[in-house]
Amino acid sequence: MLGVDYSSHSQTTLNSFMGLSPAAWSEARSAIQNLLAHDQPTLRDDCQLRAKALVPRDGATMHLPANIGDYTDFYSSLDHATNVGTMFRGKDNALMPNWKYLPVGYHGRASSVVVSGTPIHRPNGQTRPKDDEPPVFGPCRLMDFELEMAFFVGGGNTMGQPISIKEAHNHIFGMVVMNDWSARDIQKWEYVPLGPFLAKDMGTSISAWVVPMEALKPFLVDNYAQDPKPFPYLVHNDKYNYDIKLEVGIKSGGSKEAVTVCRSNFRHMYWTMKQQLAHHTVTGCNMRPGDLLASGTISGPVEYKTTTIFGSI
Amino acid sequence: MLGVDYSSHSQTTLNSFMGLSPAAWSEARSAIQNLLAHDQPTLRDDCQLRAKALVPRDGATMHLPANIGDYTDFYSSLDHATNVGTMFRGKDNALMPNWKYLPVGYHGRASSVVVSGTPIHRPNGQTRPKDDEPPVFGPCRLMDFELEMAFFVGGGNTMGQPISIKEAHNHIFGMVVMNDWSARDIQKWEYVPLGPFLAKDMGTSISAWVVPMEALKPFLVDNYAQDPKPFPYLVHNDKYNYDIKLEVGIKSGGSKEAVTVCRSNFRHMYWTMKQQLAHHTVTGCNMRPGDLLASGTISGPVEYKTTTIFGSI
Repeated sequence: MLGVDYSSHSQTTLNSFMGLSPAAWSEARSAIQNLLAHDQPTLRDDCQLRAKALVPRDGATMHLPANIGDYTDFYSSLDHATNVGTMFRGKDNALMPNWKYLPVGYHGRASSVVVSGTPIHRPNGQTRPKDDEPPVFGPCRLMDFELEMAFFVGGGNTMGQPISIKEAHNHIFGMVVMNDWSARDIQKWEYVPLGPFLAKDMGTSISAWVVPMEALKPFLVDNYAQDPKPFPYLVHNDKYNYDIKLEVGIKSGGSKEAVTVCRSNFRHMYWTMKQQLAHHTVTGCNMRPGDLLASGTISGPVEYKTTTIFGSI
Repeated sequence: MLGVDYSSHSQTTLNSFMGLSPAAWSEARSAIQNLLAHDQPTLRDDCQLRAKALVPRDGATMHLPANIGDYTDFYSSLDHATNVGTMFRGKDNALMPNWKYLPVGYHGRASSVVVSGTPIHRPNGQTRPKDDEPPVFGPCRLMDFELEMAFFVGGGNTMGQPISIKEAHNHIFGMVVMNDWSARDIQKWEYVPLGPFLAKDMGTSISAWVVPMEALKPFLVDNYAQDPKPFPYLVHNDKYNYDIKLEVGIKSGGSKEAVTVCRSNFRHMYWTMKQQLAHHTVTGCNMRPGDLLASGTISGPVEYKTTTIFGSI
């Protein structure tokens, strides 16, 4: 039926499928949409096939969509970087000098990326509650999470051969929602000078569903106006920002209803995913299908004020 | 012949074998030693079996010993941390306050770990040659490498269930030599505030051979005297430092002989591998067989002075 080799569909993860081209992703999407359409009889009128092909949602076990080789977390919301920077260094030095020249990021721990709903253990670790006293060991007292989105890399590149900004879209498979769980008190003590480490390794949650870039096309909006103009390897003139409304609700053990603590929108990102991918490979770093690249906390110019926590979620 | 299931030996990587226990590693080692012994006829007197079992060294293609899920680089040599810190912050503030309380480390890029001998491309990237002028884009001008060793994790742990210091040895499979290639000018501009990133992602070289911990037992030496005393989760009283002489030679394209530029010894490490592993999992981070944990540059109290590069190799 399909022109491409779909042996990748028999794998337990999407890595092989992600490694195909946008044309193949699109073809598979059309075929599935067609099978599910109300006016198509193939699945609708064949109850045996339906029983074989569909699993009731209540009985489904959700899995990570891919075997994640490497996971990178960027820091690409201007409002978030400014808020956090203001807390640590004051308003005038909020942004580090490199922030508007390159998408700042760090390598996270791939093994601890889990599918949404997986319980996260409150960690023990070292903290230093008082700056002039020795550190202490015990349970984290400042557990936090960040509202992020992330994208899965499609086809990879050979080490030493960067992915150009023109080619970047063809290497971006689709997006997930992400929560970056963080032990802030542990992070504050451990992160100097080499960056975030174990304070985030008790787990990072992503949605099991990956939304393909093609499905997001209707939600394209103007990119963030960048000043100064980035280096040529980061410049693209087509829209690659997305109007995706995001909301965080917290439901405690005893309550039935979630309380909304934060609203934001992915459109507030300063650096686009194309820029993140082109930058990530510019020194020659090789990407593999199924690598995960996250946005960093998505704060907006208005929305973050609805939360009482300044700058993190 | 052997008591354990050796189906793991038919894999193309050692991950499954690493995931077995020290007893299984030891048994396999004995069996191989026995087969290779001069007074054992099984292999010695069977030239068909020899032809099947042995590959001439000149014709062998070396591969990475494992599929590396995650790669961590520590920073555990006191002399190295002091030298680098002195360069950046002066003698009195050389060490960050956390350094003697925990093994400082960061997540590196697993995809770009390659087997020794793989060519490394000189990267392009952003640098800022003058602090009061904008950054520039172009080829790295300060390529460097660090002399390190690394260990492969054996059996892993479940997320949320730390590996105790008492159990750590049973999770340490063996050691490799490592060179951490670094674009220092790119690193200086990009690394604030989230740590090393793309300046090290053009490649990290490790030896194809892994030396099992059992083989290193005769070289155990006293641990570094630690002051202040670490938290209990990091304390072990048995020796776990190793007398391993290390030397770096550089051979340029035109010359036949390598020039020795650096000598050091693994015995100078401040934090032991057991401490690194116990710390790495204390917040609940899950390890998998084949994860790679590196020492950071190994400088010594005397040896580093033989090189003209202060503090890096």
